[in-house]
Amino acid sequence: KRAREYGLKIGILPTGKNNAITDVPGVKVGHTTLIQGENIRTGVTAIVPHAGNLFQEKVPAAVYVGNGFGKLAGSTQVQELGNLETPIVLTNTLSVANALNALVSYSLQLPGNEKVQSVNAVVGETNDGYLNDIRGRHITEAHAREAIQQAKEGPVAEGNVGAGTGTVCFGFKGGIGTASRQLKPEQGSYTVGVLVQTNFGGVLQINGVPMGEELKNYLNEQMQAKADGSCLIVVATDAPVEARNLERIAKRALLGLGKTGGIAANGSGDYVIAFSTHPNLRISHNSAEKTQTVTLLRNDDVTPLFLATIEATEEAILNSLFKAETLTGREQHRIPALPIEQTLKILKKHHALQP
Amino acid sequence: KRAREYGLKIGILPTGKNNAITDVPGVKVGHTTLIQGENIRTGVTAIVPHAGNLFQEKVPAAVYVGNGFGKLAGSTQVQELGNLETPIVLTNTLSVANALNALVSYSLQLPGNEKVQSVNAVVGETNDGYLNDIRGRHITEAHAREAIQQAKEGPVAEGNVGAGTGTVCFGFKGGIGTASRQLKPEQGSYTVGVLVQTNFGGVLQINGVPMGEELKNYLNEQMQAKADGSCLIVVATDAPVEARNLERIAKRALLGLGKTGGIAANGSGDYVIAFSTHPNLRISHNSAEKTQTVTLLRNDDVTPLFLATIEATEEAILNSLFKAETLTGREQHRIPALPIEQTLKILKKHHALQP
Amino acid sequence: KRAREYGLKIGILPTGKNNAITDVPGVKVGHTTLIQGENIRTGVTAIVPHAGNLFQEKVPAAVYVGNGFGKLAGSTQVQELGNLETPIVLTNTLSVANALNALVSYSLQLPGNEKVQSVNAVVGETNDGYLNDIRGRHITEAHAREAIQQAKEGPVAEGNVGAGTGTVCFGFKGGIGTASRQLKPEQGSYTVGVLVQTNFGGVLQINGVPMGEELKNYLNEQMQAKADGSCLIVVATDAPVEARNLERIAKRALLGLGKTGGIAANGSGDYVIAFSTHPNLRISHNSAEKTQTVTLLRNDDVTPLFLATIEATEEAILNSLFKAETLTGREQHRIPALPIEQTLKILKKHHALQP
Amino acid sequence: KRAREYGLKIGILPTGKNNAITDVPGVKVGHTTLIQGENIRTGVTAIVPHAGNLFQEKVPAAVYVGNGFGKLAGSTQVQELGNLETPIVLTNTLSVANALNALVSYSLQLPGNEKVQSVNAVVGETNDGYLNDIRGRHITEAHAREAIQQAKEGPVAEGNVGAGTGTVCFGFKGGIGTASRQLKPEQGSYTVGVLVQTNFGGVLQINGVPMGEELKNYLNEQMQAKADGSCLIVVATDAPVEARNLERIAKRALLGLGKTGGIAANGSGDYVIAFSTHPNLRISHNSAEKTQTVTLLRNDDVTPLFLATIEATEEAILNSLFKAETLTGREQHRIPALPIEQTLKILKKHHALQP
Repeated sequence: KRAREYGLKIGILPTGKNNAITDVPGVKVGHTTLIQGENIRTGVTAIVPHAGNLFQEKVPAAVYVGNGFGKLAGSTQVQELGNLETPIVLTNTLSVANALNALVSYSLQLPGNEKVQSVNAVVGETNDGYLNDIRGRHITEAHAREAIQQAKEGPVAEGNVGAGTGTVCFGFKGGIGTASRQLKPEQGSYTVGVLVQTNFGGVLQINGVPMGEELKNYLNEQMQAKADGSCLIVVATDAPVEARNLERIAKRALLGLGKTGGIAANGSGDYVIAFSTHPNLRISHNSAEKTQTVTLLRNDDVTPLFLATIEATEEAILNSLFKAETLTGREQHRIPALPIEQTLKILKKHHALQP
Repeated sequence: KRAREYGLKIGILPTGKNNAITDVPGVKVGHTTLIQGENIRTGVTAIVPHAGNLFQEKVPAAVYVGNGFGKLAGSTQVQELGNLETPIVLTNTLSVANALNALVSYSLQLPGNEKVQSVNAVVGETNDGYLNDIRGRHITEAHAREAIQQAKEGPVAEGNVGAGTGTVCFGFKGGIGTASRQLKPEQGSYTVGVLVQTNFGGVLQINGVPMGEELKNYLNEQMQAKADGSCLIVVATDAPVEARNLERIAKRALLGLGKTGGIAANGSGDYVIAFSTHPNLRISHNSAEKTQTVTLLRNDDVTPLFLATIEATEEAILNSLFKAETLTGREQHRIPALPIEQTLKILKKHHALQP
Repeated sequence: KRAREYGLKIGILPTGKNNAITDVPGVKVGHTTLIQGENIRTGVTAIVPHAGNLFQEKVPAAVYVGNGFGKLAGSTQVQELGNLETPIVLTNTLSVANALNALVSYSLQLPGNEKVQSVNAVVGETNDGYLNDIRGRHITEAHAREAIQQAKEGPVAEGNVGAGTGTVCFGFKGGIGTASRQLKPEQGSYTVGVLVQTNFGGVLQINGVPMGEELKNYLNEQMQAKADGSCLIVVATDAPVEARNLERIAKRALLGLGKTGGIAANGSGDYVIAFSTHPNLRISHNSAEKTQTVTLLRNDDVTPLFLATIEATEEAILNSLFKAETLTGREQHRIPALPIEQTLKILKKHHALQP
Repeated sequence: KRAREYGLKIGILPTGKNNAITDVPGVKVGHTTLIQGENIRTGVTAIVPHAGNLFQEKVPAAVYVGNGFGKLAGSTQVQELGNLETPIVLTNTLSVANALNALVSYSLQLPGNEKVQSVNAVVGETNDGYLNDIRGRHITEAHAREAIQQAKEGPVAEGNVGAGTGTVCFGFKGGIGTASRQLKPEQGSYTVGVLVQTNFGGVLQINGVPMGEELKNYLNEQMQAKADGSCLIVVATDAPVEARNLERIAKRALLGLGKTGGIAANGSGDYVIAFSTHPNLRISHNSAEKTQTVTLLRNDDVTPLFLATIEATEEAILNSLFKAETLTGREQHRIPALPIEQTLKILKKHHALQP
């Protein structure tokens, strides 16, 4: 069950319908999960901003680098031009190239893109090498393409799926998590949805409760770790915000990560990619016009989106933990799931569950 | 009393001797507090990195802009050259210029600086205009200089003092707060000290407990506010870290702010200035040598400093709230202190106090 | 005479009417020049983006830090919010604070700003300490205010005026320079205007001709210099470009500086501030609406503005040299003007003058 | 012949022995050139910083994004950690993924890297789609690996080789170019070497002479172009400079590009990667020590490196033009080489050739 189903209420804002990134109209998510033999525990997750040809109708976007120990591809063009022209694909660290190729192939082959010669594919990753034979590079271009093609609206599978199949979070099994927030009409009725691939550490807090300390499980490796760790965060919104304010929104996601006890350790690649699906902000690849008319949210009115992002990120991370299951993988490495019963007992003791 | 004296224990690391930025050897803090008549509620706080001529012996430093709705002066040179050559002065938004002049005068007049023609003064601010007649610009150059001159080691006054005299935090009286963390010998025995000037909002959490919700006091204005808000954060450490890693440390302070419920609202000027006091990293203004030999902490070993920064920032903010007192100022505006008894009762209910 | 009057033609684009930043409709420039006694050689230059209340009707803006060895005030808020709410004031390094105070006073006193409590004043500087008694800090708030008040449209005084009164460029007398470019109708008929305060070094090139080498005067001090140097560049345009593309435009100005032989030496504070005066992009300080509708130039169509910026910056720097006059100042320091006759002869030899 | 062999002398500093990036001791360059049939005109160029295991002994490095319309992979980790752990590979836009895979495979297979699970591969690109069937993605992992393996010291092939096989520069055939500068003993005797992959436009200037105008060939497409263009620049030095000053050095390379008439058009992906080969600055992947002692050049003494970088970049770009040859490729597209005789005649007219 998800965090909220156990009685956790994160923050003060209501969730969207499915409490998922797909609550932002048009956003789709697809997973390819690879659990094979004793050593392969990995996968791909694709986030598709809208159903059309994204290369021809780009969305405003921004990237924020929380801690750059990671291999995110495509960030500089997103930052320079303020837009995103491919789906976002998440996978493991050593499979970024195959995922890139998948996105390039996908884009080149879309009807209408027959003359396209340049594609800025965005691929994020975390390192699942503890549970997965990451050096085997088992993710193929086909796996990544499959994740894109299977992307759908509605509820999103969480935990040990897709790019979260083999990840570890706060010493427990992490994975994919998602959540959303719905603003009130006087704030524009906008939706903010977040999806995370959790593979980082720190001192776990759940709804403010010092769970890492209570469970005596924290900072196993984060204080010395080198190249593992990382959290990829994708933020979607239908609010009419351009790249500059999307970057500010992206920055706030890190505060949500911090509230779960994350510390953005040296070895953590913590990145946030934010985009707006607002139909009127789409950027046509070609245009007869030299200008585009857009209606944008004023700076003064972005704060509710900041709060929504922080809350949804915190909850998405918790969902990844609550939904993940104990997994044994490479070299018999075993990562336990968050011990739900014990966790709930502690939360109850701290009055951190809804009655 | 300070947060910890009430039984709050923030995080897992031990504090330094005074749980203050001054636990970093050599760092001094001075306040000028201006409470005059019915409308003047403001002041200046100075943080002095070492006792020598800072212009001649600069310290490695970095600035991180959490949210740039603020008037921090001096940031670009700190970022470019990676060093700090004046004390850091904090004051109110409209008095930055007078504080700048004070730092320039102070620097020009130091023995040994007779030929100096360029000074990069660093001044931070938050807006105390709700309680203070900020438009009256009552801070003079003399006030700022006084704060520098009175700077001393040892315990630091908190709450309604210096640059925190008239600030507001989460709808309660904010002010100056400080805290520190002491790393273990195997982590280098380094100290991290933080000082904050708190004037921001969000949804207050104290040690993870949703105090804003419990006290039904949150987001009064932050969701619409325009130009108020802000949190200035100064991080000092004796760890041997150069500008690049100091910037990474500075970035983590925002996670501590987030853990208190801060959201870095649009109208908040949230800045972090971090410096290292390590004696061997001092940068001589003039040198016969073209090179300098330094011993620096490796990337792999900075993570404990990140955690220390997050914890000390969270606790410093709480100290500013616990130590501040109800204040009435301009136009009879009144900001209540955090209701201590009620707060402690709620913390107890949530098992968030040490026995 | 200006560079072009001698037959120099920089680049391929035509200039605006006055070949000045004031060719951008509404932009005004004012100077206060302070030449007193033997030692005071300094001043203030103000650039006013439009005739209205700039605080209430802000303009989109961006800052690019070419080399941050400087004291530019106000940059972080411009970057965060993407707008400019005061005129830009340029002066000498140690007078930034007084200029800031002037801008704050000016803004607080404008009709309509009676309740304003926060002003992000933008002040740039270069160091005129070789010719000017900079430690005397002779620029007062009144001098800065005077520059703002005297700002006017039309031709702009260049050379030893305003903030350029005591500056040195490539070992010759520098100062204020300006230039503009006018795009063709098919490129939108936009105007780009640039104003520079030149105080930097390198190996002078004039219209591509290696003048520094020919005149055997280059890199006098730049290869060892510490704190002097700097070039402040202001770019104005009436093209409808938002902060993100203004930052890109600002970045191109450095290429213009490079073409004159500038090298952005360690000790140079090279900053560019760019803004758009397009009436429909004004950002109201207060608004009943949560959104604003704007018509913006597409990324694909900003390149002509880049070229215009590069050309106008190069020519503005040359104008500052051609218009400056030999000056003797502090401690009998004397900086010669560019030797015009000899320069023209060399240019002619290199076929670098129009017939 | 190279630019200098025709009598061109760019700047005031002497070159290194081979006037190539390989003048920096230990740096090696390798090319794979793919000219097949009528439509394949592409390749790979690899720059190897030192002969050892680069993953185990990383070099200090930085990336500067001149204009981010490009797909450079690996930039964020270089920026965060300040180091480079793989050779730099340049290729065409749609082959970045295969080059990434090659670098990952290469790194995983190096003796000593048997347990490595994370590799930050750095791949730059420009778009050779006008002459090359870029959509065919003909660069394989084997091609990229071959470039790494064939890397050698000494003179570097230029023009239509490696990643420059199919590129276009200022409307003429571009390609790979290289140059170097040697500082004097009193400046530390350091060497700066630059290698460029030129595929951009503007208004060509050669040694200051307005060649684009003289040849009536400029801005063919740059004023409207969308996704083509780009210049990848690699700067190597043996000076002891850490990441922060390497970033400043990288930034200066753009000034060299500007001096050739480049304008960093919207559609240009202009990136600079700079690294130091100084043996004492190597960063061991593993270390028993928590600190590293390094001797670094002071800020005050980096300016000569800036000038060297500007000059070497300008000359490297010119070398790419002088050495490239007319090429016919995809769909019978033909790009002429720079017309050498005519060019020399014009240069002579402008007194821009050494006697």
